[in-house]
Amino acid sequence: MASPKPIHVTPIGLIHTPYHDHDDIPIQGGFKPEGRGWVEVFPEYQEGLKDVEGFSHLFLIYLFHRAGDVRLVATPFLETTPHGIFAIRGPMRPNHLGLSVVRLEGVKGNRLDIAEVDMLDGTPLLDIKPYVSHFDWRENVRCGWLDKHFEDGVPPHARRKDGSRPGG
Amino acid sequence: MASPKPIHVTPIGLIHTPYHDHDDIPIQGGFKPEGRGWVEVFPEYQEGLKDVEGFSHLFLIYLFHRAGDVRLVATPFLETTPHGIFAIRGPMRPNHLGLSVVRLEGVKGNRLDIAEVDMLDGTPLLDIKPYVSHFDWRENVRCGWLDKHFEDGVPPHARRKDGSRPGG
Repeated sequence: MASPKPIHVTPIGLIHTPYHDHDDIPIQGGFKPEGRGWVEVFPEYQEGLKDVEGFSHLFLIYLFHRAGDVRLVATPFLETTPHGIFAIRGPMRPNHLGLSVVRLEGVKGNRLDIAEVDMLDGTPLLDIKPYVSHFDWRENVRCGWLDKHFEDGVPPHARRKDGSRPGG
Repeated sequence: MASPKPIHVTPIGLIHTPYHDHDDIPIQGGFKPEGRGWVEVFPEYQEGLKDVEGFSHLFLIYLFHRAGDVRLVATPFLETTPHGIFAIRGPMRPNHLGLSVVRLEGVKGNRLDIAEVDMLDGTPLLDIKPYVSHFDWRENVRCGWLDKHFEDGVPPHARRKDGSRPGG
């Protein structure tokens, strides 16, 4: 096989959020629905937003622009055990590509108002795709090391710091 | 704002599938569960696969390597009306990034056996992320122009060519 050639990608916009530091960011945006931000799509790509307003949720693919290092094994938030980078969602991955589902609240020109954000302010945006439940939902999903953190359907952000559940 | 700089990304592997031509590919991999393939992760990234086997499904981010053009408005499969490229999932998008959910059937060294594939054979892989239902499911989802194709929960691949439903 020929050695793979590097590929160039170019930001199509910027993601503006209230989060200026990694410590501010929720584990996942869906756990903090009030976390709002907006996407600035550069004007040369605005035409591509036609009909996006019909979708309630979008995938954003973006660059973890402040993740300098690559670590193939890392210990994610919630854990003390290291896992392979392809079994976690953290930023220190090869190519530093981020993926999030956000809720679309409105489209005005080249601006998308979004909620459930979990990226840093000023994040370079590489692509927007419609979130399509007909394509993107799967049944009988196993989530490896993560499932134990969601036992009884209680997400970790609802637990106390000692790991116990409110009311539990 | 400074003009955005191009970003270099490098394939971490290749996706091998039975599909050698765009016409062979299902609309979405989940509609053809028997469509199997495998991911070859380049050996220098194999360490990052630790604990991936605990996940039943993965997101693959890859390059639509045979999509030469960029079109900001295009007419997707199923439609005769053009839509903005960010409201569809097709390949002719800025940066040519593809995103699919696949089912993981096994991990052997640097090889992932996968099902529900919908990409061309030889597709350059850029990232693997665990599919986490706790993060990636959303309720009350509206899917714009796509919803009408899934009325009554009948996906379009189950319809006859004239649009009628089997038994309908």
